[in-house]
Amino acid sequence: MKIRIPATSANLGPGFDSLGLAIKLYNYVTIKPYTCQSISIKGEGSKKPRLKVNNVFVSIFTEVYQELLGQKDNFRFEFENNIPFSRGLGSSSAVIVGAIASAYHMANIKISKEKILNRALVYENHPDNIAPAVYGGFTTSIVDDGIVKSLKKELPKDIKAVMVIPDRAMSTAQSRTQLPKSYYMSDVVYNSSRVGLMSAAFFSEDWEMLKFVARDKMHEHRRMKKMKELFEIRKIALQNGALMSTLSGSGSSFFSMTYEKDVQKLLKKLKESFESFRVESFDFDNIGYKIIES
Amino acid sequence: MKIRIPATSANLGPGFDSLGLAIKLYNYVTIKPYTCQSISIKGEGSKKPRLKVNNVFVSIFTEVYQELLGQKDNFRFEFENNIPFSRGLGSSSAVIVGAIASAYHMANIKISKEKILNRALVYENHPDNIAPAVYGGFTTSIVDDGIVKSLKKELPKDIKAVMVIPDRAMSTAQSRTQLPKSYYMSDVVYNSSRVGLMSAAFFSEDWEMLKFVARDKMHEHRRMKKMKELFEIRKIALQNGALMSTLSGSGSSFFSMTYEKDVQKLLKKLKESFESFRVESFDFDNIGYKIIES
Repeated sequence: MKIRIPATSANLGPGFDSLGLAIKLYNYVTIKPYTCQSISIKGEGSKKPRLKVNNVFVSIFTEVYQELLGQKDNFRFEFENNIPFSRGLGSSSAVIVGAIASAYHMANIKISKEKILNRALVYENHPDNIAPAVYGGFTTSIVDDGIVKSLKKELPKDIKAVMVIPDRAMSTAQSRTQLPKSYYMSDVVYNSSRVGLMSAAFFSEDWEMLKFVARDKMHEHRRMKKMKELFEIRKIALQNGALMSTLSGSGSSFFSMTYEKDVQKLLKKLKESFESFRVESFDFDNIGYKIIES
Repeated sequence: MKIRIPATSANLGPGFDSLGLAIKLYNYVTIKPYTCQSISIKGEGSKKPRLKVNNVFVSIFTEVYQELLGQKDNFRFEFENNIPFSRGLGSSSAVIVGAIASAYHMANIKISKEKILNRALVYENHPDNIAPAVYGGFTTSIVDDGIVKSLKKELPKDIKAVMVIPDRAMSTAQSRTQLPKSYYMSDVVYNSSRVGLMSAAFFSEDWEMLKFVARDKMHEHRRMKKMKELFEIRKIALQNGALMSTLSGSGSSFFSMTYEKDVQKLLKKLKESFESFRVESFDFDNIGYKIIES
């Protein structure tokens, strides 16, 4: 079998732990029965030998597969990793979702996307990346009594993602455990009202409204100040046609959304300013993980 | 002229200061040039003589009218008030929105609904009631740099509001100034993620999803415990077909939303349990304030 899993951008400003979307930047994994357990890695991670020994995809795949069939079989896993690690592009979620979906497929057991999503929550307890990795599109999600509930909106082709992917990860000081434990009511309303209006804007395709709803008062500023260039990325993006421009997950990548007609100009401006960073536009993925070869 | 303004139910659980909707329970105001300033009140408030002396509608109308024309004229105001006072049904917002829209109409100056909404924000600095009073339907709103931005979704006829309106207001101890000044991150995410998914559910008409998104961790519990019957109202509503059941604004009314087919059963159950409260179903208003006679 061969599975494809999209990269994702989560939070989208105010939507901490709830909003996300999927882009056409894919990891691929090919899995076949084999005489022993075997791993090959191309692309991201290919130069990290420990990933052949301690591989999260293989661990989760094996756990789920054994649980389903009560036996351990040997497979060869061929990874073609295009989603950068530790850049806020959902590489962990892609691993988790891909491993679960693959295990069910190899065990020959049908499962709904909703169940895959809920199984993924065991490994990543916030749904903002795993939901778009499962469904594609723009997703708005909650966890209700341990269950993920999510609604998805497909994104049209005339809207694009422009990603700026820095040459380094942000320091671990930005992790969620180091965010404040409590927030002022005014900041809570600031964020929560924007999550509502942003969801409505995506669902009604009111792209102009995105210009007003993408700011956050919970996490972005604290995280961004560890890599000062991020403020400059946002400024350039918003001055050059971006509808919104937000930290991707916990960073270090920066996500901007723009009309197709403005993409080239924005790419050019960003590339000029950040020569050492990867600057690239992507279509949105509206499918989520997909088994592309049985 | 004669204007009609709908009652509104705000917050809708998690959507503190941002979500609201309008119902077909209307105040009417007839205004005509007159030899002196004159006020008559039918319905709500008719037994409060001070409302003829110190009338908020008339004050706001006069302020806006004078500002527009630079002169003060005399009018007769005939109020037909059906929205109960101090019950969380947006009677203040109806007054504010109605007064501004009437002043522009009597001054013979055209104005957009968006501008009416922003003028209303001067008198009520959170948009959750004034937005649906202006636009009708379900509204999700933010205040961005002093400006209200709002999206509206019309509500279909096969979904109804069931209101329980207690025979008394809640004590003032529930006012917003007495809510906590700060909130834990987990509660913030609980609420803000639900605001997102609730907005998406309304915009995609996924009514079943409302069963999962309407709980709040910011204000309802603190307010409801001042009137214990409210917990019982919610319990009965959710056990008898309500899709969601939330404190209306800051109370004391309780709003439930239900499929048309479940309305009669729910009304019967609630009336049996709360004989001294007003229990009534309403269609949703999709228009907002409307000048029904020029």
